[in-house]
Amino acid sequence: MNIINDIKIARQRIAPYIVQTPLIRLPSLDSFLGCRTYIKAENMQITGAFKIRGAMNKAVSLSPQERAAGLVCASSGNHGKALAYTAKLLGTKAAVVIPYSAPEIKVKAIEALGAEVIRSDLSERFAVAERICAERHATLVPPFNDPYVIAGQGTAGLEIAEQEPELDAVLVPVSGGGLLGGVSCALKNMLPGIKVYGAEPEALPRYSRSLHAGQITRVPQQRSLADALLSQEPGSLCFPLVQQYVDEVFPVSDEYLLKAMKLLLTEGKILAEPSSCIGIAAVLQGLLTVRPEEKVCFLVSGGSVGLSQLDQLKDVTL
Amino acid sequence: MNIINDIKIARQRIAPYIVQTPLIRLPSLDSFLGCRTYIKAENMQITGAFKIRGAMNKAVSLSPQERAAGLVCASSGNHGKALAYTAKLLGTKAAVVIPYSAPEIKVKAIEALGAEVIRSDLSERFAVAERICAERHATLVPPFNDPYVIAGQGTAGLEIAEQEPELDAVLVPVSGGGLLGGVSCALKNMLPGIKVYGAEPEALPRYSRSLHAGQITRVPQQRSLADALLSQEPGSLCFPLVQQYVDEVFPVSDEYLLKAMKLLLTEGKILAEPSSCIGIAAVLQGLLTVRPEEKVCFLVSGGSVGLSQLDQLKDVTL
Repeated sequence: MNIINDIKIARQRIAPYIVQTPLIRLPSLDSFLGCRTYIKAENMQITGAFKIRGAMNKAVSLSPQERAAGLVCASSGNHGKALAYTAKLLGTKAAVVIPYSAPEIKVKAIEALGAEVIRSDLSERFAVAERICAERHATLVPPFNDPYVIAGQGTAGLEIAEQEPELDAVLVPVSGGGLLGGVSCALKNMLPGIKVYGAEPEALPRYSRSLHAGQITRVPQQRSLADALLSQEPGSLCFPLVQQYVDEVFPVSDEYLLKAMKLLLTEGKILAEPSSCIGIAAVLQGLLTVRPEEKVCFLVSGGSVGLSQLDQLKDVTL
Repeated sequence: MNIINDIKIARQRIAPYIVQTPLIRLPSLDSFLGCRTYIKAENMQITGAFKIRGAMNKAVSLSPQERAAGLVCASSGNHGKALAYTAKLLGTKAAVVIPYSAPEIKVKAIEALGAEVIRSDLSERFAVAERICAERHATLVPPFNDPYVIAGQGTAGLEIAEQEPELDAVLVPVSGGGLLGGVSCALKNMLPGIKVYGAEPEALPRYSRSLHAGQITRVPQQRSLADALLSQEPGSLCFPLVQQYVDEVFPVSDEYLLKAMKLLLTEGKILAEPSSCIGIAAVLQGLLTVRPEEKVCFLVSGGSVGLSQLDQLKDVTL
């Protein structure tokens, strides 16, 4: 598959439905990070995260018959919200499979977007989603391991390259690798000299290990404050892209996630969920050496965070 | 004085020292406000507020001898911080007069920027500042009623006009009127068809009353959550500009300030102090009628807010 072309096509297709999020220069962070700081604010994307890019690209690429039969996914997070919104915007149905263990507030948010919510056991959720697809002839929209989803997420990379072509490096959160795979492909094609890095929770170092091993390596399920980055292994379509286009992936500690979130909020004036701050955290933790004159962009992937979650930042020291 | 020219000169002079803050499209606020929402993010300005524009323009317009004798102001807030930073950047001295009643955290922030802090009684602070100026042959930098300060603040208006020339209206917080006077002058000169509105605390309706009376009218000192907007009367240099260039000034309730702050933070993902959210509050309160297709920009003037202040938002309903 010719990914960079797919990303450019995706951009045209999803343009009517998404916003070009701002790329913001944040000089107030420079002294903390040791570089010229930029963020790509996907927390200001429609539905509050980049996920709408991939879900929408998948949906608009379906035939009218396929689209009318509905969309299905298993996600209580940003992907589920994005799929529900996509279906609403396109006038079709979405069914979102959510584990019994997920908080009621997430269920309500997805129902509020008009989607059908189907509860299941945590371990059963993907099987339930596939069964529903089969029964209804509906389309499964995977969270990352799908060429249309990857191409959709990659559109954020095209925007970054146009908005600030003088960047030296971009840091991207990674879980399954749909965002990192697509964005790194777009960036390296548009700006050959740029460095692209991933950042993942150190409790789930699936990309660090897989890259080191040269093959997809599964890690045990662990908890992390980066609750949007809990995949146990790279997507099979994402991994080769990351191998080809990403310079390094850093495993980041939860402690630095909270520092990064506090820094971005109190100094940068931008609210983002912990998972989204993992690139900033990687630099704070000293995993990547940057220079004061370097222009470094942090892709801030989402902003799903409630006010009560900010209490945990009060005792965090920068 | 030819203000628009002064504003253009100011822009050249202060360009090396400030940042062009982003003008951000925030579609997530559209359904709440009933218009196409943009913000001019002066909370992301150096020192966290627009105030550096005016203070810096005053300082760089002094002769080398004047500048070397130092800068003085009476302000424990954003203006004091901006002046301290200006002096540090230009390699001169700043003395900032702060009332005994001001919180210690503000004193520390200004001292950390290298300024001398002089404590005084609240009612004596301006007299103390003037006495220091006389003793040291230093220059008083007023918070708003000064042509260089007004021209400096107006540079934010030039940026808005260039960044989004298709805007229908801009809402600006107003206290003494330096920001509103300068920005409205810039906007009306650059984009003749645009509407410019001010928003002030309803507890201190100094502009609403003065505009109605056709002359500067003093209001009693009152408290408001908009703690950066507590001036009792319009500046004598600012008032004629507001009369000439501003379409209307709205008195806004504290209740809607908090709603606006919560909306901007939780939906827009942007942290701003209550005073800065007063334009959004004016629309939420129904004081200005807007249409869904109208492009409305809210100047978000500053971001000086601590995490503990966010607790008061938890019980606020949108």
